[in-house]
Amino acid sequence: LEQGARERVLELVEPLHEADLADLLEQLDADERAMLVRVLGRDLDPYALTELEEGVRDEVLEAMAPEDLAAAVKELDADDVVYLVEDLDEDEKARVLQALDPVERVAVEKSLTYPEDTAGRLARHEIVTAPPFWTVGQMIDAMREAEELPDDFHDVVLIDPKVEPVGLVPLSRIMAAPRATRLEDIKREEMHVLRADTSVEDVAYAFQKYRMLTAPVVDADGRLVGVIEFEDAAELIDDEAEEDLKLLAGVGDEELSDSVFETAKARFPWLFVNLLTAILASIVIAQFDRVIEQIVALAVLMPIVASMGGNAGTQTLTVAVRALATRDLTPANAWRIIRREALVGLANGLAFAVIVSGVGLIWYGDPTLGLVLAAAMVINLVAAALAGILIPIGLDKLGADPALASGTFVTTVTDVVGFFAFLGLAGALML
Amino acid sequence: LEQGARERVLELVEPLHEADLADLLEQLDADERAMLVRVLGRDLDPYALTELEEGVRDEVLEAMAPEDLAAAVKELDADDVVYLVEDLDEDEKARVLQALDPVERVAVEKSLTYPEDTAGRLARHEIVTAPPFWTVGQMIDAMREAEELPDDFHDVVLIDPKVEPVGLVPLSRIMAAPRATRLEDIKREEMHVLRADTSVEDVAYAFQKYRMLTAPVVDADGRLVGVIEFEDAAELIDDEAEEDLKLLAGVGDEELSDSVFETAKARFPWLFVNLLTAILASIVIAQFDRVIEQIVALAVLMPIVASMGGNAGTQTLTVAVRALATRDLTPANAWRIIRREALVGLANGLAFAVIVSGVGLIWYGDPTLGLVLAAAMVINLVAAALAGILIPIGLDKLGADPALASGTFVTTVTDVVGFFAFLGLAGALML
Repeated sequence: LEQGARERVLELVEPLHEADLADLLEQLDADERAMLVRVLGRDLDPYALTELEEGVRDEVLEAMAPEDLAAAVKELDADDVVYLVEDLDEDEKARVLQALDPVERVAVEKSLTYPEDTAGRLARHEIVTAPPFWTVGQMIDAMREAEELPDDFHDVVLIDPKVEPVGLVPLSRIMAAPRATRLEDIKREEMHVLRADTSVEDVAYAFQKYRMLTAPVVDADGRLVGVIEFEDAAELIDDEAEEDLKLLAGVGDEELSDSVFETAKARFPWLFVNLLTAILASIVIAQFDRVIEQIVALAVLMPIVASMGGNAGTQTLTVAVRALATRDLTPANAWRIIRREALVGLANGLAFAVIVSGVGLIWYGDPTLGLVLAAAMVINLVAAALAGILIPIGLDKLGADPALASGTFVTTVTDVVGFFAFLGLAGALML
Repeated sequence: LEQGARERVLELVEPLHEADLADLLEQLDADERAMLVRVLGRDLDPYALTELEEGVRDEVLEAMAPEDLAAAVKELDADDVVYLVEDLDEDEKARVLQALDPVERVAVEKSLTYPEDTAGRLARHEIVTAPPFWTVGQMIDAMREAEELPDDFHDVVLIDPKVEPVGLVPLSRIMAAPRATRLEDIKREEMHVLRADTSVEDVAYAFQKYRMLTAPVVDADGRLVGVIEFEDAAELIDDEAEEDLKLLAGVGDEELSDSVFETAKARFPWLFVNLLTAILASIVIAQFDRVIEQIVALAVLMPIVASMGGNAGTQTLTVAVRALATRDLTPANAWRIIRREALVGLANGLAFAVIVSGVGLIWYGDPTLGLVLAAAMVINLVAAALAGILIPIGLDKLGADPALASGTFVTTVTDVVGFFAFLGLAGALML
């Protein structure tokens, strides 16, 4: 990447798609990255900036010469610029905004007035609108005469004199209809209007549920302020499932490009919570140290009870978290699902009770030990089922994300119940 | 829902969106569901059928009178019918297909010739095409004269005389351009063509990566056979993250409407695998029963080492599985990521070593016990990191889904290494 090789680099980078260039930038280390950014200069595809992970993006923006950055943001649409600048500090943000032409700057600043993670921030503020009484012919002529149209839009938004949205007309229908047709006669059968303060979670849910392509966004008075297109919402839908996955595993918003120190620091708190709950389980075991001293087999077998409970609890928890996210689990069917999970826990508890009593019998030749293991298994799998479903429902009721830390809560319950049931029963029946 | 109340039911169901009607059907039990389907008869919104979970859908299709089912499928687009019938048995499928008019039947049958989970099956086969030399005016006139256009499409596909796709023209650009403009002059800068035998995973990945709205699908000779629109692909992208989540937790394709027996049966195999690995961990403990007999504190503290390892391993695993799914983890950066994870494991291992040595010291007043606990913690968190990254990469190399059962493999490693390191070091240093 050193001197003179600039042309060779350009030759290599030129044919890359913006997403591939972003991948390349992410895979380099910080020094190589800064060098590539400086070598590319104004030839860096601005769209690649929108594809970068947050950490890398900030580094790249910092490495760019101010005039190159200004040139880059000029090429982007307003919603991409918003995405790019929203996490910058105020100085950087002002610098980028100054590079924009006044019309676009107003659009970006308007977006930025809405809080992050709301429909207002997410929406595109360049909208193609028309009164409902316009004909297809008038609409086509108006669009053809417009100085600039958004590049990819799917629907024309019909508005009344109060600028309230009253319908959506897909471009494909405008194409298919005779010029004299009135727009309101070919509007979509349904329209779901979102308020600007709707959370992105609810935006994602609405798009997923109603399979809509375009949703008008309105302010508190019902006036149209923007539109959200399906492709903007789709990314959110994807993010939701990934977020659940990461929350359940105790991984935050980390990225592959994060440093060792950042990553270790981000994962530490979760591990620390887990340590506290593990110590809690150890305290339960410590209550039975006399029993273990006399029957060491208990120490050998007790992880089986805890591990099975942890696994069964995680199964139920995963189903519950996703069902809450997709709103398939509602107050209306919660009791039915809780009962079902408890019965599933009981059924598998009984099945594994039979198996592990055999293990206890064959390994140690002690039918009472087998019986204790079996009883503890049934108790723990039912407890696992109840914890797996009640904890996320409880978190949801409290307004927290049902995936947050619920894995740790559930395994705490299964560890404590498992050790207590197994060692307690052993102490009562075997001494 | 009994006699005479049909009108009341219709009144209640009529205003429901198809997705809400589907939710309602899913929340009822099997008998109520069948009754509602029979009561609704021909007034059942056919689009609700496409929104149902698989198990419920089959029940509903079975409960419908043949003539109602025939009427319903006639209203749907070909790709919805494909989705509806692909899991039916042959008799049912033939019955539904016979209800279609010949043109649509051919389209459905054509889709069904492609294997499930491929681009060919997923694609829409009604396509709007044009030669590249057509003008915007010709295109608009042709569309307006066409007997039927697909309801929601975003791009016109430009094809050459060999029916090979050569470009995509967004409707919004056709709208904005003067009538004399040639289509090829306003085509999209990029087009990513998919082969009909591309797996749906690769389709989802391509749409996610290149943020495209429409992808032409071609046969082995490069001829256009269909198009996939963003909204069809988006569902797949979502499914991928959800699938990873469920595979990691050992939950299959289950649905909230599954019975207790079905659910318990589906979750049993995973729990059984976990039992085998838990027994393996118990065998490791059993090797040290003499040591435990003399120092019961070991039995009390050993779950801490195992639990911390399991948690740290799951963190790394989750990051690795998602990075493989989004193809951010590639052979090019694998070694860097493996090194990073090992160092993160070492860093947190050292941090927790300090903490747990304090726990050992304060609880049991034994510095050697604290040292043993600390050393086992470092060893196990490094092992957890390596298992968490190497197991999914290995599964991926073998062509398996990296999420499949990897959670169990990882916790097996952390249990075995954790117990062995802790009890082995204790045996060597404390007796």
